[in-house]
Amino acid sequence: MISVSIIAIGDELLNGFTIDTNSQWIKEKLQKYKLSVNRSTIIPDSKELIFNELQHSLNQKYDFIFISGGLGSTHDDVTKKVLSEYFNIPLVINKEHLSFLKKKFYNKRKQNKNIDKRNKIERGIISQAEILENFNPIKNSIGTALGMTGKINKTRIFVLPGVPKELKNMIEETIFPNYLVLDSSFPVKTLKTTGITESNLFIQIEDIIHNNKNKFKFSILPHYTGVNIRIIQLKENLYIDNIVKKILDQLNNFYYGDDNDTIESVVSDLLIKNNITLSIAESCTGGLITKKITDISGSSKFLKGSIVAYSNEIKNSILKVPNDILNKYGAVSSEVALLMAKNVARYFKTDLGISITGISGPSGGSTEKPVGLYYIGILFREHHFTKKFISKANDRKYNREISSDTTLNLIRLTVNKYHEQ
Amino acid sequence: MISVSIIAIGDELLNGFTIDTNSQWIKEKLQKYKLSVNRSTIIPDSKELIFNELQHSLNQKYDFIFISGGLGSTHDDVTKKVLSEYFNIPLVINKEHLSFLKKKFYNKRKQNKNIDKRNKIERGIISQAEILENFNPIKNSIGTALGMTGKINKTRIFVLPGVPKELKNMIEETIFPNYLVLDSSFPVKTLKTTGITESNLFIQIEDIIHNNKNKFKFSILPHYTGVNIRIIQLKENLYIDNIVKKILDQLNNFYYGDDNDTIESVVSDLLIKNNITLSIAESCTGGLITKKITDISGSSKFLKGSIVAYSNEIKNSILKVPNDILNKYGAVSSEVALLMAKNVARYFKTDLGISITGISGPSGGSTEKPVGLYYIGILFREHHFTKKFISKANDRKYNREISSDTTLNLIRLTVNKYHEQ
Repeated sequence: MISVSIIAIGDELLNGFTIDTNSQWIKEKLQKYKLSVNRSTIIPDSKELIFNELQHSLNQKYDFIFISGGLGSTHDDVTKKVLSEYFNIPLVINKEHLSFLKKKFYNKRKQNKNIDKRNKIERGIISQAEILENFNPIKNSIGTALGMTGKINKTRIFVLPGVPKELKNMIEETIFPNYLVLDSSFPVKTLKTTGITESNLFIQIEDIIHNNKNKFKFSILPHYTGVNIRIIQLKENLYIDNIVKKILDQLNNFYYGDDNDTIESVVSDLLIKNNITLSIAESCTGGLITKKITDISGSSKFLKGSIVAYSNEIKNSILKVPNDILNKYGAVSSEVALLMAKNVARYFKTDLGISITGISGPSGGSTEKPVGLYYIGILFREHHFTKKFISKANDRKYNREISSDTTLNLIRLTVNKYHEQ
Repeated sequence: MISVSIIAIGDELLNGFTIDTNSQWIKEKLQKYKLSVNRSTIIPDSKELIFNELQHSLNQKYDFIFISGGLGSTHDDVTKKVLSEYFNIPLVINKEHLSFLKKKFYNKRKQNKNIDKRNKIERGIISQAEILENFNPIKNSIGTALGMTGKINKTRIFVLPGVPKELKNMIEETIFPNYLVLDSSFPVKTLKTTGITESNLFIQIEDIIHNNKNKFKFSILPHYTGVNIRIIQLKENLYIDNIVKKILDQLNNFYYGDDNDTIESVVSDLLIKNNITLSIAESCTGGLITKKITDISGSSKFLKGSIVAYSNEIKNSILKVPNDILNKYGAVSSEVALLMAKNVARYFKTDLGISITGISGPSGGSTEKPVGLYYIGILFREHHFTKKFISKANDRKYNREISSDTTLNLIRLTVNKYHEQ
């Protein structure tokens, strides 16, 4: 198994102000390859600490080291100089990249008349075109700093810029196709479920796991809105699809998608495929359900629009929920949820109308109607009903996330149940 | 300066499926203290690699090591056993925590009749109450695994569970008050701006930076919706407020808040303070602006509601934008934006109505109206106008974020300009 160490360099990544998203992105992308990431480290722009970490990673004889950050042209960007000193390999100018940079900079702006500034720009350009002498350049087609890769003993080192867009582009365009082999890896599959607890899910598939544990690795991964099952094939000549089928037979409707699917992408695909139009009436989720749906490009094919009725006044004046219903049952009630769903569907002329009303907290709860209580209303053609549920997250943000995903899941279940194929 | 190393332990954090949010959270929280985080590492649940990293961090003589993860009771949770072996210190049972756990587990469920299972539960409980012999316990008031802290030579080690809620609780309730001193730290201030580029901002405050660079450290930190200025005081007996005031004088309206402020929290405070009600008509942002506003608890005080008019049909039927206007100018136009804002404000009876229409991409753009083009409409009492802008992010997600934050900022600027105090 190929072993990997990831090193992110930058003061900003350690002082809490900037999140190192690059390392996580690399780990996610490497899932497709037969690799084992053994270490992921963040260190400052300091010669001593970079030396330190390099020595550690080289001692461990990792097959690959991914280094990101510090390739720019300011005083903080020390990575290439430090590598040059550590390996005792001089930096040389990559002529192709230098002429690319010169074109880029000199075409864009007029020559600066200040000789001092001109020299500064010139030095900056040259430093970005430098790489270690026997290393290969990694082209940066969207930024300015050139990447590089080379082997030190048995370890291949990739040196990349810290700008996420540039790093991603270089890894996808150069490193994956040239240095990593997809074919040799065994299949991995993630099955996504919602509405079933980790322990109940485990009971459902315990026998399958037990009978196949030498052939596949199974992980049960709970998240706050559902539980994922990851299956990794361990040997050749096996059929992961057979195992997936066996598991799916046990999961019924709790299963909603695979790998990169989200509940909103699954709902979008379902509504587009079946030509079903949607409108939404949100209260407590305040636009989050609609936001999730419209995160998906193509959602305009089925979503006509939404009303966020954050106040009772709007529930009455716009969504036409009678005031006596609001007063009698309260805004957070099955009765109001149902009228919101029915009225938004009628008003927006859609096949499906969905609504939610509840209490996300931290304030607004009572003994009778605690924080975390939600009612979802749904109208789908001639069918309509409501669903009550309680989120126990005890946190406004998570309550909103959980209640939004539960609502989206109810769309999936309702269409699967009632739509005639 | 106190030096810190953060070590997160867990296979899941390296294989790309789970993000290590704990380390980032610790870094953010440590900003308030006079510390320097020198290293942040993620390693698997492997004895060899934990040994390895401990040795490395102890060799570097860090003052503090924060270790998280692997304190549970399953076969993967090896942290305490490995530490015990590495330091050659036995694990002992903390009686207080053991009796707390016993109460918790035996009160909740009936005694399991299966002796085998009962023994398993018993062993699990005991393992969670164990700590290194001369270490102090760190109470876990919301979970089950006990934390611990102790000194090895001059290094203080904190051992914490990987469950984010439990870790945060233990750090805030025990570690910060007992082991870290706030007072000794020099003040740090972040000023947040939007609407001005990094280079223009730098020109505005270059002289202030130059004249004070021995007393304060200045960092200019661009983000995709604005630029932050961070000021760190370097010596005693200085007044950071004086420097902040000088900088603010240069920033005018580009400055919107400090430290933990967000544009949505600033807008919320402004509207609540001045008793101004708001309604929103969103097209391309699909609920994101309303979602951001309702992220803030208390937004029900000023937000009446929103209409997401994702289709032209709804712009016409609900927001009453005449079809001939939609046909003549197109949905993405100044004319439509203005009518959306005016009509939502009238319809929802609010002081302020704001709207946005644009093209977030990736599809839907043309030469005349490219992806990234937006029109914002605003009505505030007797004032109304529109603003055109182009986001160059070339990415659906970022276009939506940038256009939402620009809209929120326009609310701030408009109220500041026209509201009579």
